[in-house]
Amino acid sequence: MRSSLITLTTDFGLADSYVSELKGTILSINPNATIVDVTHFVRPQAILQAVFVTRAAWAAFPPDTVHVAVVDPRVGTQRRAIVLQSPRGVHVGPDNGVLSSALPEEARPPPGSEPCAVPVPAGHHAFAITNREFMRHSMSTTFHGRDIFAPAAAHLSLGVPPEKLGEALGQIIALPPLLARVSNGGAIHGAVVHIDRFGNIITDARAELLPAGRLSVELSGHSVMGPVATYASGDGPVALVGSSGYLEVASPGGNAADELGVKIGDSVVIRARA
Amino acid sequence: MRSSLITLTTDFGLADSYVSELKGTILSINPNATIVDVTHFVRPQAILQAVFVTRAAWAAFPPDTVHVAVVDPRVGTQRRAIVLQSPRGVHVGPDNGVLSSALPEEARPPPGSEPCAVPVPAGHHAFAITNREFMRHSMSTTFHGRDIFAPAAAHLSLGVPPEKLGEALGQIIALPPLLARVSNGGAIHGAVVHIDRFGNIITDARAELLPAGRLSVELSGHSVMGPVATYASGDGPVALVGSSGYLEVASPGGNAADELGVKIGDSVVIRARA
Amino acid sequence: MRSSLITLTTDFGLADSYVSELKGTILSINPNATIVDVTHFVRPQAILQAVFVTRAAWAAFPPDTVHVAVVDPRVGTQRRAIVLQSPRGVHVGPDNGVLSSALPEEARPPPGSEPCAVPVPAGHHAFAITNREFMRHSMSTTFHGRDIFAPAAAHLSLGVPPEKLGEALGQIIALPPLLARVSNGGAIHGAVVHIDRFGNIITDARAELLPAGRLSVELSGHSVMGPVATYASGDGPVALVGSSGYLEVASPGGNAADELGVKIGDSVVIRARA
Repeated sequence: MRSSLITLTTDFGLADSYVSELKGTILSINPNATIVDVTHFVRPQAILQAVFVTRAAWAAFPPDTVHVAVVDPRVGTQRRAIVLQSPRGVHVGPDNGVLSSALPEEARPPPGSEPCAVPVPAGHHAFAITNREFMRHSMSTTFHGRDIFAPAAAHLSLGVPPEKLGEALGQIIALPPLLARVSNGGAIHGAVVHIDRFGNIITDARAELLPAGRLSVELSGHSVMGPVATYASGDGPVALVGSSGYLEVASPGGNAADELGVKIGDSVVIRARA
Repeated sequence: MRSSLITLTTDFGLADSYVSELKGTILSINPNATIVDVTHFVRPQAILQAVFVTRAAWAAFPPDTVHVAVVDPRVGTQRRAIVLQSPRGVHVGPDNGVLSSALPEEARPPPGSEPCAVPVPAGHHAFAITNREFMRHSMSTTFHGRDIFAPAAAHLSLGVPPEKLGEALGQIIALPPLLARVSNGGAIHGAVVHIDRFGNIITDARAELLPAGRLSVELSGHSVMGPVATYASGDGPVALVGSSGYLEVASPGGNAADELGVKIGDSVVIRARA
Repeated sequence: MRSSLITLTTDFGLADSYVSELKGTILSINPNATIVDVTHFVRPQAILQAVFVTRAAWAAFPPDTVHVAVVDPRVGTQRRAIVLQSPRGVHVGPDNGVLSSALPEEARPPPGSEPCAVPVPAGHHAFAITNREFMRHSMSTTFHGRDIFAPAAAHLSLGVPPEKLGEALGQIIALPPLLARVSNGGAIHGAVVHIDRFGNIITDARAELLPAGRLSVELSGHSVMGPVATYASGDGPVALVGSSGYLEVASPGGNAADELGVKIGDSVVIRARA
């Protein structure tokens, strides 16, 4: 029999017992589950970062995978616990937008707007997790990762249909997609959305937005040329389309974010070059 | 067939080869083992921290799990290697108290005392690991995690009875439980035992010790009120009972330890409020 | 059926989505693969560090394991992707020397020389990975870990013969072994090659090079005595042979690298003591 695949994305870090409590809970219910960590180093409470990291991560897994995302500043309050079934997987987490990358971009709020409730799109199904039968017997108000989300994921991985967990939902909270804006003059106005371990600066300007031919990227008072084909091309910072399909600024053999003094949230302007 | 579950708790970190050497050793002996990391970020040689983190972690796993804990400042000396069978699991590690959370609290030395040898309590069985048949062929004096504990855990996970590993022991080393003291006046005198990734300050005052109703927590020159129900309640630092059953001080949306200037070992006084 | 074992060594860290993309890719192809992380904390682009860490790590795994190592500063350029079959495992990565610890030391360039192409030694077989059938359908120029190495490893773990991946190679790039030099006077002239989480200073002086009896180690202006048998012996920094067979300097209960002000690359001289 094929093992069931479950991924975990949290802001728990790896120095406390929390992640292992999720895993012990899952394996107590489904001993055959294969559990893969996406990351546990989301900055504490940074829902947007979790949405960014899960976009590329979840796309690499088979469509019958159960994905758990727990970045949950309002744990224990009235915010709902949900399961979201999509053509690309089954997603479990708090209803605070952390599951947004499971939704098609056109179903999410317009770029630039605040997180808000959106209708569950066609081909997707959402359910509240309210059925105590699929929760930990002894419930805390502070650790729903262990008490609600991990047990729900384990039961789903065993084939429990999502609708058994609670009532169907017509709307769930979503974050807008990360998508730079094209101005009338043709310039792309975007932002730095991530800096990876190599110091690569990842923007919200997707490949299909970019002008054909050569371009320049202005950020943090610097002007960087591109696009190049690989991280090994050029001398000093260069622009290229990274593996996730967004424009990045990288420094061959160096750390572009350190060299340019760039941080997450900084604005970026991309222009065609003659 | 059900895979055997083995957990690992060490102070090895994740940048060296050590953890993978444990895993390769285990999987060489039992290819069907499922290995879960509790944490490898115990501070170097901090046995007490390992006892704290394993208390909550081990409680989340099925009772047939094999738990390995290696925080071992005296590796290669005469300190013994042991296996401790309890109703909650099979525990493997050096005989220096690192397995203490596998023992009932009443079987451990009184709160506040030094680590010392205690009788193995009813329902538990302890054995020295001395049988070379279940060790690595080539033994080092510096890495018993790889050479003794990992092979022992792998063989135990295959169903080797613990008594095959070596002679039965009547006593093992244990650390006192983390337990605040109630003074004659009713105040609880405790200490900060852990600070997690969110900056939550975890004390040794267990829920059942706390006064009914409202309370105040004095620490690091500050006075914090509680209890609240969730991490999202209140404005500024608040006290609440966390998922492990101990009183914590947390700061909604912030980092309580940083804001209050608190560190592990600081003293804490808890009082009922009118 | 026995699960196939695959290890991963990279410089990706654990905060980005990259490692999970490798794992999702592998498990999409071979759902029964057991994936073990060696480390993802190789310093960015530090091929030599990857060779050091994999030496001890790979030795702990069964000989049918597939080992992936991705430290790849020239990803997307003409550098080749290769699979190297050795008596100790099947190794997958870029042809930049990162797989060197899979080769016998005598087949690598002489100590002290630059990385260069060497003949594939007897009992080993190397192949270029060029067959698109075993790659990701949509290929990037920046993430061959996900697009080439992970799929290759997954297919190899399913029993695809290495020669199906591409043409046989007569030469591959290798790094010289880490091996201190013995001078005419009998002193050993070496270097610090690694500092582990405990602050243990690991040199390139292998046990069999060392003089019999007592010795002194000069490094960073200090003179350290040894050898002792265990990390718990002595008072202040001491020298001993560590678990990987190299001479180390450790400080019982302390951090030798911090106390002595030593860093990777520092030179070391070892002499016999009367």
